[in-house]
Amino acid sequence: MDENKRDLIKLIQLNFSHLSKGQRLIAEYIISNYDKAAFMTASKLGEMVGVSESTVVRFANALGFSGYPELQKSLQELIKNKLTTVQRLGMEDFSDKENFIKKVVRADINNMRTTLDNLDNDTFYNVIDEISNAKRVYVLGLRSSTALAGYLGFYLSLILDNVKVVSFGMSDIFEQLLRVTKDDVVIGISYPRYSKKTLDALQYVKKQGCTIIGISDGNLSPISKISDYTLEAKSNMVSFVDSLVAPMSLINALIIALGIKNKNEVSTYFSKLESIWDEYNIYDDKNKSDIIDYDL
Amino acid sequence: MDENKRDLIKLIQLNFSHLSKGQRLIAEYIISNYDKAAFMTASKLGEMVGVSESTVVRFANALGFSGYPELQKSLQELIKNKLTTVQRLGMEDFSDKENFIKKVVRADINNMRTTLDNLDNDTFYNVIDEISNAKRVYVLGLRSSTALAGYLGFYLSLILDNVKVVSFGMSDIFEQLLRVTKDDVVIGISYPRYSKKTLDALQYVKKQGCTIIGISDGNLSPISKISDYTLEAKSNMVSFVDSLVAPMSLINALIIALGIKNKNEVSTYFSKLESIWDEYNIYDDKNKSDIIDYDL
Amino acid sequence: MDENKRDLIKLIQLNFSHLSKGQRLIAEYIISNYDKAAFMTASKLGEMVGVSESTVVRFANALGFSGYPELQKSLQELIKNKLTTVQRLGMEDFSDKENFIKKVVRADINNMRTTLDNLDNDTFYNVIDEISNAKRVYVLGLRSSTALAGYLGFYLSLILDNVKVVSFGMSDIFEQLLRVTKDDVVIGISYPRYSKKTLDALQYVKKQGCTIIGISDGNLSPISKISDYTLEAKSNMVSFVDSLVAPMSLINALIIALGIKNKNEVSTYFSKLESIWDEYNIYDDKNKSDIIDYDL
Amino acid sequence: MDENKRDLIKLIQLNFSHLSKGQRLIAEYIISNYDKAAFMTASKLGEMVGVSESTVVRFANALGFSGYPELQKSLQELIKNKLTTVQRLGMEDFSDKENFIKKVVRADINNMRTTLDNLDNDTFYNVIDEISNAKRVYVLGLRSSTALAGYLGFYLSLILDNVKVVSFGMSDIFEQLLRVTKDDVVIGISYPRYSKKTLDALQYVKKQGCTIIGISDGNLSPISKISDYTLEAKSNMVSFVDSLVAPMSLINALIIALGIKNKNEVSTYFSKLESIWDEYNIYDDKNKSDIIDYDL
Repeated sequence: MDENKRDLIKLIQLNFSHLSKGQRLIAEYIISNYDKAAFMTASKLGEMVGVSESTVVRFANALGFSGYPELQKSLQELIKNKLTTVQRLGMEDFSDKENFIKKVVRADINNMRTTLDNLDNDTFYNVIDEISNAKRVYVLGLRSSTALAGYLGFYLSLILDNVKVVSFGMSDIFEQLLRVTKDDVVIGISYPRYSKKTLDALQYVKKQGCTIIGISDGNLSPISKISDYTLEAKSNMVSFVDSLVAPMSLINALIIALGIKNKNEVSTYFSKLESIWDEYNIYDDKNKSDIIDYDL
Repeated sequence: MDENKRDLIKLIQLNFSHLSKGQRLIAEYIISNYDKAAFMTASKLGEMVGVSESTVVRFANALGFSGYPELQKSLQELIKNKLTTVQRLGMEDFSDKENFIKKVVRADINNMRTTLDNLDNDTFYNVIDEISNAKRVYVLGLRSSTALAGYLGFYLSLILDNVKVVSFGMSDIFEQLLRVTKDDVVIGISYPRYSKKTLDALQYVKKQGCTIIGISDGNLSPISKISDYTLEAKSNMVSFVDSLVAPMSLINALIIALGIKNKNEVSTYFSKLESIWDEYNIYDDKNKSDIIDYDL
Repeated sequence: MDENKRDLIKLIQLNFSHLSKGQRLIAEYIISNYDKAAFMTASKLGEMVGVSESTVVRFANALGFSGYPELQKSLQELIKNKLTTVQRLGMEDFSDKENFIKKVVRADINNMRTTLDNLDNDTFYNVIDEISNAKRVYVLGLRSSTALAGYLGFYLSLILDNVKVVSFGMSDIFEQLLRVTKDDVVIGISYPRYSKKTLDALQYVKKQGCTIIGISDGNLSPISKISDYTLEAKSNMVSFVDSLVAPMSLINALIIALGIKNKNEVSTYFSKLESIWDEYNIYDDKNKSDIIDYDL
Repeated sequence: MDENKRDLIKLIQLNFSHLSKGQRLIAEYIISNYDKAAFMTASKLGEMVGVSESTVVRFANALGFSGYPELQKSLQELIKNKLTTVQRLGMEDFSDKENFIKKVVRADINNMRTTLDNLDNDTFYNVIDEISNAKRVYVLGLRSSTALAGYLGFYLSLILDNVKVVSFGMSDIFEQLLRVTKDDVVIGISYPRYSKKTLDALQYVKKQGCTIIGISDGNLSPISKISDYTLEAKSNMVSFVDSLVAPMSLINALIIALGIKNKNEVSTYFSKLESIWDEYNIYDDKNKSDIIDYDL
């Protein structure tokens, strides 16, 4: 997206002197109420301000947009991270029970398709190499991204020797990252509403010279600016939940590719694990490990 | 699926006397090597045993399958939970780098489509009601399902008062579930290789009379037999990772539906939270909470 | 301790005009270097400033102290929470290997004796009653107090139904405490360097009308001011570690007293647990639970 | 304690032929009901069996004890790890409210004194060296020892680079320890009722050739047999709680000694941490870090 269009507010201010009187009313309304405007139709927005729908469309054109939908999209981008959870909940209802679940799952499927479209193969395989060659791999994800960080860390630990999941706990985030060096890789996972602590921590580790791999929702994400590599997977604003389905799928691809690249280590690891289970008889004969064979 | 077809080994044994000599060779090979056979084409399987491809097809018919693909599917179901991680890794390669990621993500998308197709709307809305009306809601998920349980618990806690995530820790799983009563709901999340501990725990809570909601990968899952409601979301056996993408999407739908049904509680919750942030000045003015507004 | 004496700096400022020239030198030195002065003998302090030891003693008297030791104690109280970890480490050495361990353990024993001397029986038994009668019991301890909170929560959960350990994790501290009501009890554990977050959280729950039980190191502790009951157990400043030995002993007494008061619940709990172990055969016959009988 | 006396059952069997008829009744009763006998007076025990109190005393003498109290102590040692939690709770009451807390805290003080008496200085300083020189340090403690392991791990991480706390979680204990090598140190913390999993895990790591440091309650502890070094700190059987006060004091001494030995690393660590806090302005000016200065 054009840098100017992203910053709608500035764009409006730059063009303000060229706007008609009616367009200025719209501009002023948007500046004060962009969070509401973002979810109005052109007709509704005109109504609120007291101008015609076609004035709204011309306003969009005056700012360089091909039409109102494009302006609206830009508005929604603008507020994406500013929406409070309550506002986001208000945006949703499920009067159409039949189609509600479909809507949620399809939104996730669409995010995954966009993720596939945006994914750069070279970046992906560079990331695989960086992780494989790192002295230590840190995985950092806070708030709802904690689930993704834990999941990624769980599988990475099967493949690699020196993996550390960084999360809120007895020790502070900075304490856990204090010894990062230039030979390490830090994987930062961050989704709206972006955690400031994650960004601060990544800024600190960047100064230590380590390689930063960001998993986030695109170039608007604050961590994409400081990451050496960004893997982009869309999240979802269907409602008050940040759907982390597309990032999880991307993380799967990452784990599998790493597993294949490090096939021998993984095989050794699991052979060792299975022989431990046998040797220590920790588990029933029938149920090696805490895992069941369903009744055949 | 037909009970007999599920237990392929028994099915083969029952029909053994009626099989031709060539078919018996196939039967014997499958009994000893079902884990390999499950991933062979009819032609390859015939080659291994020394019979023609059409003998393999007739063998499938003799067991009551409409064709080889149906037999193979049954074989794969059989071994699903028996595959060791190392075997699963061996099944994959990524010589085709261009298409590797697409393959993983598309497998997830397919799982999500199957999930949508299989989902029963009534079950879904009954589950919403049960969770909303429960005295206490326990969320149980071990091993890689820990990530899903934590994610679901995190969001449920925003909506409901009395949510408890049950996972390995200082206290045993049973200790954490000991006080479950018939007024409670236990949500059990279980994916292959199914955790025995999860099943044991669900069997215990069932005896206490509580309502069990299973989130699992279908009717073959051991927890589907004891759950009052099963929400089915496919997992993925692309490689050694159990992709939990489709279940996560289903969980999102669950959380959003619950949030909408309990809209007022959620609004109250967040209003309270934001006023706390204001009152205690714990965060910067510009950055309420640990959340950032990217630079506009 | 007298309020004024606690704020030594103000006390010095108030009395400055009445001090002799030599005393003023001491006053100025202390104001700038109280962290060093606090650990000097009267003679050493005099030497640093260029006055006699007796001038130092008269200075203490001029401020209202009965002697130099009393002034020094006040100085040490002042800096207690201001000492950085590095400074505290510098205060220690272990040239005398023979006696080093004894010194640490004896300091802990002394803390426990002081704890016993300061403990008010009525407060203790009121606390037992409050916890037993609460609708929900929250245990809050951050940083190194996390260990104590986890330990207390582990045992309380055996005795009581509705115990929640509050600590850093996926959810914020405030989110975890948001639903506290006047029928609940919050046990806050806080030791130097006191966590601001713990204090903020306790201030919030106080407004909700719940009962606050503080476990801390005395009346100087910021949480003692807002607690309904304070159980005082000394911590230890031998070095950079905050010894939590005396508080742990106090917590044991608390748990045991609660266990005895709720003997029937505890018996029921354990009977139930042992029958689960039997019923589900989860453990070896010889080794019920994850517990071993040593070889007799 | 004499090895024979420790194994009372064997001692009784060895001496059985020399016992009088009345003494044999006592012997048989004890073999079947040692858990009850251990808490009876001589008079009560005689009554149960139908012999006089003096026969009980002579029975004690016949086994080589100086009197009944010594026999009883041996009996209590025997059952220490066999007592169920419910039995242990039954052993306690707090009719004497005045002295109850004192009793608990004094029992802890006595444990600490015994700990000091039994501690071998050479072992202690060898342990300090082993930990300082290890490539990686694992800290393993389950059940209630989780609190000690977390506490020790928290402080060790300030001093050393490569510390890993091993506890129940998404990954199994064995998975977390799988990559242990001979250059590593594993610190195992285990108290009655000893966790079998801890012992199994230590047996596995021993085979990998690493150095094992046990923190436990003495030579009867199963981990003392496989540890390279055992630091003994008594726990407490006042009631159903395993008091971990003495081990915590020992752990403090360990941390402080390690901190002093690695003074420079610790200083560097904290200087770095404080400069991070300054640089990122993550905290209020007045309250660096999540730590408060009480009102001066």
